[in-house]
Amino acid sequence: MNVVVVRYGEIGTKARQTRRWFENILMNNIREALVSEGVGFKKVEAKHGRVLVRTNEPEKAVETLKRVFGIVSLSPAMEVDASLDKINKIALRLFRRKKRELGIERPRFRVTARRITKEFPLKSPEIQAKVGEYILENEEGEVDLHDYDIEVGVELMEGKAYVFVDKVQGWGGLPIGTQGKVVALLSGGIDSPVAAFLMMKRGVEVIPVHIYNGEKTLEKVRKIWNQLKRYGYGGKAELIVVKPGERDRIVQKLREMKKEKYTCVLCKYMMVRHADRIAKEFGAKGVVMGDSLGQVASQTLENMYIVSQATDLPVYRPLIGMDKEEIVAIAKRIGTFELSILPEDEIDYIPKHPVIRGSWEEFRKIYRAVFGEEPKQRGC
Amino acid sequence: MNVVVVRYGEIGTKARQTRRWFENILMNNIREALVSEGVGFKKVEAKHGRVLVRTNEPEKAVETLKRVFGIVSLSPAMEVDASLDKINKIALRLFRRKKRELGIERPRFRVTARRITKEFPLKSPEIQAKVGEYILENEEGEVDLHDYDIEVGVELMEGKAYVFVDKVQGWGGLPIGTQGKVVALLSGGIDSPVAAFLMMKRGVEVIPVHIYNGEKTLEKVRKIWNQLKRYGYGGKAELIVVKPGERDRIVQKLREMKKEKYTCVLCKYMMVRHADRIAKEFGAKGVVMGDSLGQVASQTLENMYIVSQATDLPVYRPLIGMDKEEIVAIAKRIGTFELSILPEDEIDYIPKHPVIRGSWEEFRKIYRAVFGEEPKQRGC
Repeated sequence: MNVVVVRYGEIGTKARQTRRWFENILMNNIREALVSEGVGFKKVEAKHGRVLVRTNEPEKAVETLKRVFGIVSLSPAMEVDASLDKINKIALRLFRRKKRELGIERPRFRVTARRITKEFPLKSPEIQAKVGEYILENEEGEVDLHDYDIEVGVELMEGKAYVFVDKVQGWGGLPIGTQGKVVALLSGGIDSPVAAFLMMKRGVEVIPVHIYNGEKTLEKVRKIWNQLKRYGYGGKAELIVVKPGERDRIVQKLREMKKEKYTCVLCKYMMVRHADRIAKEFGAKGVVMGDSLGQVASQTLENMYIVSQATDLPVYRPLIGMDKEEIVAIAKRIGTFELSILPEDEIDYIPKHPVIRGSWEEFRKIYRAVFGEEPKQRGC
Repeated sequence: MNVVVVRYGEIGTKARQTRRWFENILMNNIREALVSEGVGFKKVEAKHGRVLVRTNEPEKAVETLKRVFGIVSLSPAMEVDASLDKINKIALRLFRRKKRELGIERPRFRVTARRITKEFPLKSPEIQAKVGEYILENEEGEVDLHDYDIEVGVELMEGKAYVFVDKVQGWGGLPIGTQGKVVALLSGGIDSPVAAFLMMKRGVEVIPVHIYNGEKTLEKVRKIWNQLKRYGYGGKAELIVVKPGERDRIVQKLREMKKEKYTCVLCKYMMVRHADRIAKEFGAKGVVMGDSLGQVASQTLENMYIVSQATDLPVYRPLIGMDKEEIVAIAKRIGTFELSILPEDEIDYIPKHPVIRGSWEEFRKIYRAVFGEEPKQRGC
């Protein structure tokens, strides 16, 4: 193999100008991914809705590039001059290799040809027939268009043919860097990394912010972010750690007021205040949180209302409609789950009975008592 | 069959008191679903983390109840006194019926027993062994614990045994009515119904609001809401249609100002203003929108920032991290897709080049020019 054929989805549907811009960002992210994983390559170029990556280690390249967002599927392929003779020979070679790999005596197969540019004299169905015949003349096998063990792909453009027998799925989404920046709060739990991941998948550069709560948790969050970065090619952000100043005084004050039940809501509100400040420093346009409605008794619309008042930026909650099992399934697939369940520093100030339906008016009173000023509120 | 065993997930994990409350709401939603679908039943009761629905048409009941949120799985079952003899006989009968249904001569099967209360003398493994033997003495088949065609389930509680051979998956989520209310904007497109559905799935009562744009689209949105209501047992809301007053004047004004490109953003901002007003009339705690980041060029963080300023309520966007294919897949599964692709009234005022990254300052100028006042803004 000497090339990887990269297929992307949604970008293709955009207006021509936007599309060129998307392709350039995607190609840069691809180069960045290959460089940072130490995969050698000669050239990355966009052609007729494909990206071609010229490399001597296509398998290794595919392993890396399937984590680059915007990519729908990848095929390690052989580029040859578009002559039926050359196509036949290489198709047979790849067919044989795949057959050995699968260890099937008499594999069912099909040939799928596509003319992306039309200069090749034969039409796709004719190419499929010819290549299929050639393989049958030289190897055990039978053609089955629907239920096949091997699919031989042939894509033709600009006088070249790209022949392949593997198609690896990517994550889809959009290339990171096409959708601006957001700040994502990372707690070290299972949910917040998945929320950050889903925003990255939609092309956002995520700036991760962790509110410090002890070394053990911080260590864990660093591991989580390092894992997320493996999907973050195109983003430059490093973990930002905020050490909240007067937490003890606040917790103490709430105890004195017999309002411990508001500790979590106030704590989350303060986290979003920090996220809001950092977002504005970095020109980020939103705050991402891992809330899933009703997952814990205190994850209510009322409490989320209060927390959302802490910023004028939209708070994005990509998990809001998901069940825990769905979130865990994604966390396992992206490799953050086993990190999220590592031990953390205990939080000794979590109240036994957090408020279920916090009231903004009560929250305001508490905030004034603690900070001697009005809390930030939206739409005042 | 004389009963449906209903299993629910997350609720079970809640504190005892919350749990009773959840169970009551779930049981009410179950009753409402059965009544509105005309399924006869004698009794719905909660027992040891199960809900039992006593009915003579369990299959029909299951078809309806699998659309009730909060339910993880359902089994049409036979309730018999917990004696080994009775359990054996009924297990054999159900095994035979299932065998005929599958048309397998010699099915592989396993028996899975669970003592939910412990008064029955035999332990679960012993029950499984006995029932398995009894079936093998009377029927062709072989036990296979891992790769089986039929699973015979036996659940024991309070001197009764519940025997079943089918386990139908539910949607999971939380019972509607446990999480308060939100307003959902329904446009008639593919995305907004899916967004509303996912919030309903998390136990929210959704109040659907459509901003009128013509009879054809309204007709379509009514069909969509009627479909969504089939998942909405527990919610009482009817479609609210808002006829925006001075749309023509606004569009005209934007033309005069050569700011047509802001039409969509301003239009969406006004929609959220309406949603905000209605939310407050109904005590709803958020606004739901079907935005998916970057799906169309104008679905940017910048434009969503502007639109989000229209309310102090959180704007929930459950699709924000999803690709179009994922959204379409859900729409097809819940039966809104074929309705969403019905023809609509054309919107003649959609600009050719909508603004990609709207600026709040420019938006303010436009808003002041159009309405002679400051736009509502969060966190001022």
